[in-house]
Amino acid sequence: MSTESFAILLSHGGGGEETWRLIRGLFLKYFSNPILNTLEDSAVVNLNPNAKGDFGGVTPFPLRTRIAFTTDSFTVSPLFFKGGNIGKLAVAGTVNDLSVIGAKPLYLSAGFIIEEGFPYPDLEKIVRGMAEEADSAGIKIVTGDTKVVPKGNADGLFINTSGIGEIIYEGLSSSNLKEGDAIIVSGTVGDHGASILALREEMRFDLDVESDCRCMWDLIEMVLLSGAKVHAMRDPTRGGLSAVLHEWAGQSGMGIEIEEENIPLKAPVRGLCEILGLDPLHLTSEGKVVFAVSEEDSDKVLEIVRSHPAGREAMVIGRVIRNPQKRVISKTSWGTKRPLEPPQGELLPRIC
Amino acid sequence: MSTESFAILLSHGGGGEETWRLIRGLFLKYFSNPILNTLEDSAVVNLNPNAKGDFGGVTPFPLRTRIAFTTDSFTVSPLFFKGGNIGKLAVAGTVNDLSVIGAKPLYLSAGFIIEEGFPYPDLEKIVRGMAEEADSAGIKIVTGDTKVVPKGNADGLFINTSGIGEIIYEGLSSSNLKEGDAIIVSGTVGDHGASILALREEMRFDLDVESDCRCMWDLIEMVLLSGAKVHAMRDPTRGGLSAVLHEWAGQSGMGIEIEEENIPLKAPVRGLCEILGLDPLHLTSEGKVVFAVSEEDSDKVLEIVRSHPAGREAMVIGRVIRNPQKRVISKTSWGTKRPLEPPQGELLPRIC
Repeated sequence: MSTESFAILLSHGGGGEETWRLIRGLFLKYFSNPILNTLEDSAVVNLNPNAKGDFGGVTPFPLRTRIAFTTDSFTVSPLFFKGGNIGKLAVAGTVNDLSVIGAKPLYLSAGFIIEEGFPYPDLEKIVRGMAEEADSAGIKIVTGDTKVVPKGNADGLFINTSGIGEIIYEGLSSSNLKEGDAIIVSGTVGDHGASILALREEMRFDLDVESDCRCMWDLIEMVLLSGAKVHAMRDPTRGGLSAVLHEWAGQSGMGIEIEEENIPLKAPVRGLCEILGLDPLHLTSEGKVVFAVSEEDSDKVLEIVRSHPAGREAMVIGRVIRNPQKRVISKTSWGTKRPLEPPQGELLPRIC
Repeated sequence: MSTESFAILLSHGGGGEETWRLIRGLFLKYFSNPILNTLEDSAVVNLNPNAKGDFGGVTPFPLRTRIAFTTDSFTVSPLFFKGGNIGKLAVAGTVNDLSVIGAKPLYLSAGFIIEEGFPYPDLEKIVRGMAEEADSAGIKIVTGDTKVVPKGNADGLFINTSGIGEIIYEGLSSSNLKEGDAIIVSGTVGDHGASILALREEMRFDLDVESDCRCMWDLIEMVLLSGAKVHAMRDPTRGGLSAVLHEWAGQSGMGIEIEEENIPLKAPVRGLCEILGLDPLHLTSEGKVVFAVSEEDSDKVLEIVRSHPAGREAMVIGRVIRNPQKRVISKTSWGTKRPLEPPQGELLPRIC
């Protein structure tokens, strides 16, 4: 990794190009194995159960349990925001990472790193937020860990959640995009990123946008059980919609053409982006899903998603095309086409 | 939790009485479920596989996969120490938490929280340490996450590892101690704690002790496969041997009587404790196992443990006794008995 800087930069954690360089140049260099190397939001692993039941003398092989396993550390600042707090976010984020690989979320772990002096009532609110979100998604927090570090060694509270789920839909993968697939987004993008950004000390906008932070398994399950051919799913968190589309294009070797005017965007989010010169496609969502769906099923999936309260504003925003340059092309509202730049640089540290 | 202070203290993370109060008063209050409530080092969960194999027409139920799931965040300071670094520790710690519940460790996640400006060469050494320890234990790191926080928002690097393993030995539990069980410790206690303590700025002892940080599955597997009746196992990390014994006594409703002179202790560790007035039974080990083994199998287990390079100094250190006061009794080298105090207070922050 000789081309890397010799210190870790904020951009290495932004979810953009620098993050991918760190993952490929360092983590894959040392940890490489076929499961990790898929670089999906969740690992999919096979377990061979020690089947001890009564099988009438039949050896129950080939028998396997396919589970998804994922982890995420949450460092969001501030800890409380419109629409949620770090606890709700930590549950929703990991549940969604399991969900988009086609796994029914079952069990979560919770690891707390707490700065000495952290107010107990705040911790209780956060823990309650986790419990409520977990209950609403029907999952259990089954194991945990608590570390307290001296004042000044951490900023308030960091939470790691890891999760396991059972694969109920096989084959979802970034490399699975097919020509003609419809790209569907389940609602407005960038709500979480905009709501956090507006709270930062340097800003203090009174922005009329809540974080969309929410477990999405209920909506995703409806789509997966419908029999529709879904090829890939992703929650557009760090790096936003742009990061998802670039990852998909890169991994599948296909192109993606999107129509900007079809991307759902709340007016205040658009306004904030205009003021700050930010691309809303780089802003984090925490309660949205992007689907790549086979062409013939796209109407059906759109209808299902829109029938769910969290998916009312879903839109088909683009198509998968053959394109040897593997680029993501964005059609502007006045009909011109431009390549959509992948997210890079510092973006917003501690957005999730 | 009205009796608690209204701010989180270092002692809440020490693994002693205050940690247990936080777990019971806050986390169990909100997250309570039968799996979490066992409060073992790993959760044991049942998965019902979607058994899609050919069973000759026999419905393969009751069929289940029993897996262990655990999490641990590592905040050790300093990051490098004699015998290891935070990366090796993060792998060994989680592997050991799976192992002591009777689960063969299979897959780990790795979540990094990195402070902006952290030296890349140090990160690479740590990642290499993780890879080497994982390889030596035959497990795979299959999923991960990287967050970078601005300078001053964290102290260097924190790592969370979560892990899943397959239960190969059922029934290990803190509440499973039986009268007459032998308490066996696999080697000298407190090596990790002493080696970290000596490196702290305020100390700078040149202590001739390495951290014992090491995956213990290989040794544990030998014991479990031997057919010996093991009732409980634990790695004596935060709070040391004393925390394990108190947890076992409390959960099982039994008493434990130990003989102090049988507890293996390296001379420099003993010396450091004498100078600082610390109880070595409160010091962290990261490559040791405490076993509660049925009386008739204790010689056999001791022999197996001693046959392993990491268990040469194993000793029977005590017995489980009936004791309505549920206390841990320590017999001193001059024959008097005293109650062993549970660990409490600040102990050593950032020891693991």
